[in-house]
Amino acid sequence: MDIFAKCVDFTDAKDLMATGLYPYFLPLTGNDGSTARYEDREIVMCGSNNYLGLTADPRVKNAAQEAIADLGTSNTGSRFLNGNLELHERLERSLADFYGREEALVFSTGYQANLGAVAGLAGRHDVVLLDKLVHASAIDAAMLSGARIKFFQHNDPEALDRRLAACPPDAGKLVVVDGVYSMEGDICALPLLRDVCRAHGARLVVDDAHALGVLGDGRGTAAHFGGEGADLVTVTFSKSLASIGGAVIGDSAVVQYLRHHARSLIFSASPSPSNAASALMALEILKSEPWRVRQALSNARYVRDALAARGVPVGSSDTPIVPVFTEGRTETFTLWRSLLDRGVYTNPIIPPAASYRLRTSFMATHTTEQLDFVIEAFLAEFANLPAAVS
Amino acid sequence: MDIFAKCVDFTDAKDLMATGLYPYFLPLTGNDGSTARYEDREIVMCGSNNYLGLTADPRVKNAAQEAIADLGTSNTGSRFLNGNLELHERLERSLADFYGREEALVFSTGYQANLGAVAGLAGRHDVVLLDKLVHASAIDAAMLSGARIKFFQHNDPEALDRRLAACPPDAGKLVVVDGVYSMEGDICALPLLRDVCRAHGARLVVDDAHALGVLGDGRGTAAHFGGEGADLVTVTFSKSLASIGGAVIGDSAVVQYLRHHARSLIFSASPSPSNAASALMALEILKSEPWRVRQALSNARYVRDALAARGVPVGSSDTPIVPVFTEGRTETFTLWRSLLDRGVYTNPIIPPAASYRLRTSFMATHTTEQLDFVIEAFLAEFANLPAAVS
Repeated sequence: MDIFAKCVDFTDAKDLMATGLYPYFLPLTGNDGSTARYEDREIVMCGSNNYLGLTADPRVKNAAQEAIADLGTSNTGSRFLNGNLELHERLERSLADFYGREEALVFSTGYQANLGAVAGLAGRHDVVLLDKLVHASAIDAAMLSGARIKFFQHNDPEALDRRLAACPPDAGKLVVVDGVYSMEGDICALPLLRDVCRAHGARLVVDDAHALGVLGDGRGTAAHFGGEGADLVTVTFSKSLASIGGAVIGDSAVVQYLRHHARSLIFSASPSPSNAASALMALEILKSEPWRVRQALSNARYVRDALAARGVPVGSSDTPIVPVFTEGRTETFTLWRSLLDRGVYTNPIIPPAASYRLRTSFMATHTTEQLDFVIEAFLAEFANLPAAVS
Repeated sequence: MDIFAKCVDFTDAKDLMATGLYPYFLPLTGNDGSTARYEDREIVMCGSNNYLGLTADPRVKNAAQEAIADLGTSNTGSRFLNGNLELHERLERSLADFYGREEALVFSTGYQANLGAVAGLAGRHDVVLLDKLVHASAIDAAMLSGARIKFFQHNDPEALDRRLAACPPDAGKLVVVDGVYSMEGDICALPLLRDVCRAHGARLVVDDAHALGVLGDGRGTAAHFGGEGADLVTVTFSKSLASIGGAVIGDSAVVQYLRHHARSLIFSASPSPSNAASALMALEILKSEPWRVRQALSNARYVRDALAARGVPVGSSDTPIVPVFTEGRTETFTLWRSLLDRGVYTNPIIPPAASYRLRTSFMATHTTEQLDFVIEAFLAEFANLPAAVS
């Protein structure tokens, strides 16, 4: 059988484009934080993970530009062999300090940090247990590890307990959850999940991609719960930290082991000087300007409350992520398109990624005027809804 | 069993550090192309994949800095949802044009481009056939795909033929090879391998990571053989293109399919503006300055010939990669250390990565003085060898 046959048969994208409702890969010509440019128009960006609004901060931009001046545009090699910079190690120390952990290990993407952590630790005699709604990178990481994979009911410690009880006692057990779930904005039940893991001799990895800069004064899920964290934390730089990259943070022994066993680290080029420098500067700003965390949360709360008060079905979690629930594919894409035409950028989500919704997210740098504009746009479109979807 | 137990038991790195011969993760404070800074000394860099020497080129640096000024430090989202730039699409068109193919798809790392291509196309009912020396990212990609994996003898079309003949006829078959092999510097037998694939209805993917900017006036493996390429090509930006990132290049139908099925694309943040801009500028320079390709090759030839003439065991392939063969772990690490002390950066390689060697590689921007300095250092150390390893 020709393995390319499926490509010729794939027409979903083309069919959607023909309707004018294809919502993916919009080519932006500007992306300055709370606004973006699309088709020569300025739009309010409510579909970004730039929670602290730092991608356009002059200090972050300067740090990245200076790193290019000093260190060039690339290290053209993996950290393991010839691409390691003292700058990468400074970023690692700053991350470990911020999380109050012994060491950190910096990867070129958050996706690869998850691959490295999970596939570096688990092998074919182990079991990886995943929350049903965990990020795709953790699922790919488990696949790559060759371990047996078990999913458990979303954020349900009892379901995890039952799954762990059914694991072979001599298998290594690694549980992976998100700190904040991207599509819902809800927070993992860290203390309960950790207790269950302990009881079974399992280790817990929390992916703090959407929690760093968001929960616990920006210090992540462990700080949110006022105490001890997971056995291992992974983070990304492409959300609050205004860059791209990721890290694994935890005890020295584990991090040192991963430095020498994470294939997605060893066999991939290191973060470019500009990416490392912008993440480091954003982290320093996060440490010194905790108001940004509070502002991102309060901006999201402002929109959530306004929409809920007018009967628009929104999610209830207290993070910068505000899902606005929709019904069916046509309504989702039509609403997305109408909001875009009004100048509001949202992300349309359809199964299997999650149930139908427009995912919106808010940042510290959205102005009240922008938030009011977004609220008005949503209210106008939801008022139109029966006509729009008839 | 505690899945972290192996971490506490892992002492290889510490043991090697205690001998003073730990050769990994050297924290550089400068990395300017043909030279680097380590422990406050300038050293000649012979361990980089910066073949065209463009990471410190003012045009590439300016392009990256301007992209930061215009577009910020990050897109904080995947290309699929909110992180796609018109700039990414310009880079795609430039890559597709350069390769004479219909379309390209840009990923955030070369590692993820390979994961996306292979795991996007192959699934559990398919077979992925890998050259025994293919890059680790292709192996991880095959693992991630869930397909059955078969290795075949390095660069041996007959061995591939036998493996393909043993595949179930109804399985999709994807063959993955490197254009230029990183550790040896040898070139894949593209026309013969393609004929074998055709005969069995298999599709061929060539990873041109070390071939772009190197073979065929820089146009890669297909151009080197003067004709038709593989069914699909993957490239990285972290070698000749002075950045970090990667791409899949091929027919529209296949690339469009991967745009909507490559999880390492959809679930990972897009290349930062600076990374995309530096890759695009480096590609434009590669197109307009083919002398760089010739110079990188001639610099490598200069070192290879000088060392071979004096009896130093070097590889024979005509690429910028010059392996210098060593015997055993102690000799390899001792030589590596002595050369570093002399101011020459090389990469020590030990099994299972490849047989014992110092991997050296040369760039267009190495000066004759630097090359002579490197040659003298090698000759001096190889003259010392019996003493050094006794």
